[in-house]
Amino acid sequence: MEVFDCIVVGAGAAGIGIGCVLRDLNIERFVILDRSEIGASFRCWPAEMRMITPSFTGNAYGILDLNSVSLKTSPAYTLGTEHPSGPQYADYLEALAAYKQLPVRTGVDVRQVRPLEGGGFDVETDGGVLRSRHVIWAAGEFQYPHTAGFPGAEHAIHSSLVREWAQLPGDEFVIVGGYESGADAAIHLARSGRKVTIIDRSGRWTEKGSSDPSLTLSPFTKDRLRQVEDGRIRLLAGHEVHWIERKEEGGYLIYSETAEGESHFLTTEQPPILATGFAGSLRTVEALFEHEPDGRVRLSEHDESTRVPGLFLAGPSVAHGGLIFCFIYKFRQRFAVVASQIAERLGVDLAPLEPYRREGMMLTDLSCCGEDCTC
Amino acid sequence: MEVFDCIVVGAGAAGIGIGCVLRDLNIERFVILDRSEIGASFRCWPAEMRMITPSFTGNAYGILDLNSVSLKTSPAYTLGTEHPSGPQYADYLEALAAYKQLPVRTGVDVRQVRPLEGGGFDVETDGGVLRSRHVIWAAGEFQYPHTAGFPGAEHAIHSSLVREWAQLPGDEFVIVGGYESGADAAIHLARSGRKVTIIDRSGRWTEKGSSDPSLTLSPFTKDRLRQVEDGRIRLLAGHEVHWIERKEEGGYLIYSETAEGESHFLTTEQPPILATGFAGSLRTVEALFEHEPDGRVRLSEHDESTRVPGLFLAGPSVAHGGLIFCFIYKFRQRFAVVASQIAERLGVDLAPLEPYRREGMMLTDLSCCGEDCTC
Repeated sequence: MEVFDCIVVGAGAAGIGIGCVLRDLNIERFVILDRSEIGASFRCWPAEMRMITPSFTGNAYGILDLNSVSLKTSPAYTLGTEHPSGPQYADYLEALAAYKQLPVRTGVDVRQVRPLEGGGFDVETDGGVLRSRHVIWAAGEFQYPHTAGFPGAEHAIHSSLVREWAQLPGDEFVIVGGYESGADAAIHLARSGRKVTIIDRSGRWTEKGSSDPSLTLSPFTKDRLRQVEDGRIRLLAGHEVHWIERKEEGGYLIYSETAEGESHFLTTEQPPILATGFAGSLRTVEALFEHEPDGRVRLSEHDESTRVPGLFLAGPSVAHGGLIFCFIYKFRQRFAVVASQIAERLGVDLAPLEPYRREGMMLTDLSCCGEDCTC
Repeated sequence: MEVFDCIVVGAGAAGIGIGCVLRDLNIERFVILDRSEIGASFRCWPAEMRMITPSFTGNAYGILDLNSVSLKTSPAYTLGTEHPSGPQYADYLEALAAYKQLPVRTGVDVRQVRPLEGGGFDVETDGGVLRSRHVIWAAGEFQYPHTAGFPGAEHAIHSSLVREWAQLPGDEFVIVGGYESGADAAIHLARSGRKVTIIDRSGRWTEKGSSDPSLTLSPFTKDRLRQVEDGRIRLLAGHEVHWIERKEEGGYLIYSETAEGESHFLTTEQPPILATGFAGSLRTVEALFEHEPDGRVRLSEHDESTRVPGLFLAGPSVAHGGLIFCFIYKFRQRFAVVASQIAERLGVDLAPLEPYRREGMMLTDLSCCGEDCTC
């Protein structure tokens, strides 16, 4: 049986990013496993979709490209664009893996992670069992569409399953969910001449809102919405969808309510679009974590499971209190926190982490974070 | 005569930014003077022009908005856009000046800065003389179009004097200079249906080039160029314009040469557009600085004149060796360096500078900077 010091599950933004830190720490026996290929989730994006955080080569002046997962790299530099498409971003991750000579094994499906009595893990894959002292769960968060929110959701199409908005048949659409995915879908449908109604629980489009972009639409999306021809997109704000029904004569009936109980019925010819987010791939290892009351996994201050030592979490599902690390420029700040714990236990020299600390890629003091802007 | 501890000349990005630091340091007797109004140069931008560095509210996670001039502020948050127009950016500067209650005096033209024998300065304005121990020269760099490069340049229009590209009469244009201003002009002319030829000394459009955006086109501009309809913009790369002549029958003749001496003649009906940059407003105080062989002013490690102590420089004309601080996200890193020097001499508590240091707004070690990206 192959034995490792560390197994990273997932070769996406989190897996490749943390792999770079392990490489810089000269950890020798580690491997990155991916069911598919490097950056596979990004390759599945709808054709029109782009990163919402802008890429810019500020690196040389201490401002790391927002979409970079590693020091001294910049998607803006590699790709020459401010808002990469999914496949472009996957190209950047591949270039980085090649440059750092990361030990990535693709086409390996992790089925179970089993803690061993004396510490460490057996990682069961479709190609056999691997053993490791440490496991970093960095599997994609955007693989399992969140579809089960209400009765009749099965009649709808999840936004992530659309290959290209321009090719979707139909003239009028209803989108359930008005955050980034819903807005993105609406923008591309409107650009290709269709009319769209968005049903959203909140009214965040119209408010200035928080300065934390996890809680408000990105500037990129606000700009794009302003450019849409008047009347193409209608926002039904403050409405929660309760059910969808298929009508006998064809088409769909969508029922929504406001918080005050005001009812609204909408009909649409085309299947409604669900922009309701994703269930993370954490479920494979869910039982190995304790959970917070809000359902998120409970993590130690080093993003380690509080139930099973040696199992770490990296990527957008990392959360501490009110702080959600859902964007790349946020969760990358925790890579070196995790890696330093593992390195310490392996007795490896921590000196290579100094540049990470200096460049803001090793966020240990969380008191600094959260709502910030005064103007 | 009014006496100050510090006079800041210019209420643009540099002047307002450094004013915020002086305010945070509780320096009491300072004033910011501007010939016109806050952010006046930004209000003069052509209507279609936008900031080329993207604004994003990463502040709460330690990544200050690239266009912010002060901690805990973000143009993306204030303006809700990724690429502000000139007037929008001036609005942000005004909001910031109001929030920080900066002592700005507008409509005051500084005519001369005269060093005094015992130290300090008399600052002669159109409204009388002010005296100060320290002067920070933060006057705009984009006020004096650079037009005198070659014979016949007077026949051309400098890009900064165009109010709106869409309104400029004519169908075909020649632009001299292919860096950001030239590319921006070409993009807007092409978008409004015109054909454009750009003559540029280098061929930087076609190369991947440096990862320092001072030396290569921004991702924003590369993206916009890709979106221009094929054939609308032609780049005559590697050509230097030698002269422009007015033709008897109307129109203009433009002569350019390659480094190898290859000649090229172009004719155009409309006056050529000069996108050849600006002469900074430093000339008012030029004599108070020593100069480097490349013509830039020589600065101490605190951005102070090496000839006249007490006179500091802030803004895009700051340079150290090969490092050019021409973008906002670069030159703002020197505000606190200057302010700490002044505060120290005034015997003021330096503790308020700690957040600046922590957030990368106090760049003292320049060895970190320069070419950086590996991929």
